[in-house]
Amino acid sequence: MYNQKMLALGQVRSVIRETFEYGNRRKAEIGKENVFDFSLGNPSTPPPPCVNDTLIQLLQTASPTDLHGYTSAPGDMLVRQAVAGYIASTYHANITADGIYMTCGAAASLTISIHALACEEDEFIVFAPYFPEYRVFVEKAGAKLVVVEPDYATFGIHYEDLASKITPHTKGVILNTPNNPTGRVLKKAELERLADMLKAASGAYGHPIYLLSDEPYRHLVYDETAPLPYLTNLYPATLVCDSFSKCLSLPGERIGYVAISHDMPNYAEVFAALCGAGRALGFVCAPSLMQKMLPACLGETADLSAYRLNRDLLYQHLTVYGFECIYPDGAFYLFLKSPIPDANAFCLKARDFELLLVASDSFGCPGYVRIAYCVATDMIERSLPAFKALADFYHLG
Amino acid sequence: MYNQKMLALGQVRSVIRETFEYGNRRKAEIGKENVFDFSLGNPSTPPPPCVNDTLIQLLQTASPTDLHGYTSAPGDMLVRQAVAGYIASTYHANITADGIYMTCGAAASLTISIHALACEEDEFIVFAPYFPEYRVFVEKAGAKLVVVEPDYATFGIHYEDLASKITPHTKGVILNTPNNPTGRVLKKAELERLADMLKAASGAYGHPIYLLSDEPYRHLVYDETAPLPYLTNLYPATLVCDSFSKCLSLPGERIGYVAISHDMPNYAEVFAALCGAGRALGFVCAPSLMQKMLPACLGETADLSAYRLNRDLLYQHLTVYGFECIYPDGAFYLFLKSPIPDANAFCLKARDFELLLVASDSFGCPGYVRIAYCVATDMIERSLPAFKALADFYHLG
Repeated sequence: MYNQKMLALGQVRSVIRETFEYGNRRKAEIGKENVFDFSLGNPSTPPPPCVNDTLIQLLQTASPTDLHGYTSAPGDMLVRQAVAGYIASTYHANITADGIYMTCGAAASLTISIHALACEEDEFIVFAPYFPEYRVFVEKAGAKLVVVEPDYATFGIHYEDLASKITPHTKGVILNTPNNPTGRVLKKAELERLADMLKAASGAYGHPIYLLSDEPYRHLVYDETAPLPYLTNLYPATLVCDSFSKCLSLPGERIGYVAISHDMPNYAEVFAALCGAGRALGFVCAPSLMQKMLPACLGETADLSAYRLNRDLLYQHLTVYGFECIYPDGAFYLFLKSPIPDANAFCLKARDFELLLVASDSFGCPGYVRIAYCVATDMIERSLPAFKALADFYHLG
Repeated sequence: MYNQKMLALGQVRSVIRETFEYGNRRKAEIGKENVFDFSLGNPSTPPPPCVNDTLIQLLQTASPTDLHGYTSAPGDMLVRQAVAGYIASTYHANITADGIYMTCGAAASLTISIHALACEEDEFIVFAPYFPEYRVFVEKAGAKLVVVEPDYATFGIHYEDLASKITPHTKGVILNTPNNPTGRVLKKAELERLADMLKAASGAYGHPIYLLSDEPYRHLVYDETAPLPYLTNLYPATLVCDSFSKCLSLPGERIGYVAISHDMPNYAEVFAALCGAGRALGFVCAPSLMQKMLPACLGETADLSAYRLNRDLLYQHLTVYGFECIYPDGAFYLFLKSPIPDANAFCLKARDFELLLVASDSFGCPGYVRIAYCVATDMIERSLPAFKALADFYHLG
């Protein structure tokens, strides 16, 4: 009577959403200020002023019929030119407007890219821990998700396992750096080693293995000062799947893009397939007002210093309390090792202390929890005694 | 190397887009004012003032973090309540907030509904002439498009042909009234006869046949004064696929919804399947600022009197010139019979007179052209001598 897979996806909430909904019920019971909710990756800092200023200016001065009208399917040409110009000048990437396809956010960038590429029996590789929706997106396109094991020492890439997972059916590799959920930022040398492996495998199998770079956290880095390496420069067959959700604090507005460089093999065909996939999935165009705001705000970011402060505060205290976690140099997540093997049981226990954490099982890496620190700093400060009590409960430290 | 179907969809422009692009080139050659472009269904009247007023007010007064933040996947609860309340009070429909799923426009409403419902070997029925993207959406979901022949006498429903096309595999029927491309508005009696047939067939086959009511033109009616019948009242297994693109003149902003009534068989499961499909296709949520503008603007419309004026002007003159066309009582299209069997050849000839019309072949109804009259009235006035000359060329009148 309806599609059973879609039914199941609609009925079974992600563990992130389930934790968030539990939090809302709990806040209603005991008061908002008494629940320490680290469940959602929803930016806590407002957009930079240029966003609302530009939106208001457009609403007050532009022709409303043009402003709210359809743009062409890949986006408004002036917007595409501005985005391409920004990327080309910042990263020296070989990207022009005709390689930019504006989307309704990073999720749309990914589904459009995957549907553009996927054929029957194709495989897409992800690196554990991975954002759980990758599985949903890849399987919806009729392809198979192949998971590379975590490198527990560094939470970088487990190259040996990757080598064993690449097959003639490998169509793409989905990369996410800075990473959700670990906060790890891959170094240039790590990316180059990945690029070399993919180039060798593409050559061996006689067809490109595409790299889908899911990079909404690109600007959320706290220790690096130079721009992160741009993937199309290291590996031409890259589709950059970007979004302004995190850097401009606009996650609800659904605005992002796919970028491909002129060095992409079969450049024109890959771009046409993106257009076809966007059309077939029903996207029509990216929201026009948000598109037209972008040229004035490229390169701007929300105030990211709050995230750095939160990261430092949480990392320093939790490690002192005896928790183990990977040092997070980007995004706004901290990946904590559960002191007991069952991270779900640990999360349930943490709820006794009103701490809402997300177990890592659905990220393909059991035994850890994700702490989203895109929250008010004072909530972190108030949560520290609860973390201390939780550590004491497990006799840590 | 990429998906060949997506490549083809991206490479082959729709005839509507192709005509529009030709128009842009031609305007550059001979001047904008000398080309009479009737190709696109892009609203020509601005949004009602409440739209931009509300957007500016929200941007100036709401918390920017909340305003631009994620809403829950089916939409912001206050927005869903407002939309449901408006529908319930206007149409006495049995619809509440938990039956409203906010989307990125009508195309998304349709793809989400189709993917929620479609299983292997399923068939979706459309009535020719039909919006060409229906085929793209249905086939992308792995289902089969079944086309009911036009009723050339009335451009209503060809019930006999419909009866012969319903099979045990029929999962859904896509209805579009007021209609693109004919402008026809189905009467209550016509809808009731359709509902009776679908009820009988659902009973006979032991499973609901869903009605997908694609109705972005609901408010664009020129001769009716009472609200059009609401489909969930006539046929409980209806998914209303609506959009604010046309009534609020916001086609680029991608804001719409799916509504189901409590009378829908397996109400909760159908809604969950919608949530699952939206998630799997990568929609995340409808654009949040546009969602939050809606409660203040429900029931408002752009100034539709210009469309009525255009309709009257064009219909009256073209019929006097000897063209045959169905009387359009809604939407903003006029469906003209080509004076020669090959409507594509007719459209090419029309270009000699700088008239840009869209041949009906891809609508599943050869031999006609679509004239989108959502244009400036003075362009229509200036185009009349060209239409007269075209009629004379074919010795009409």
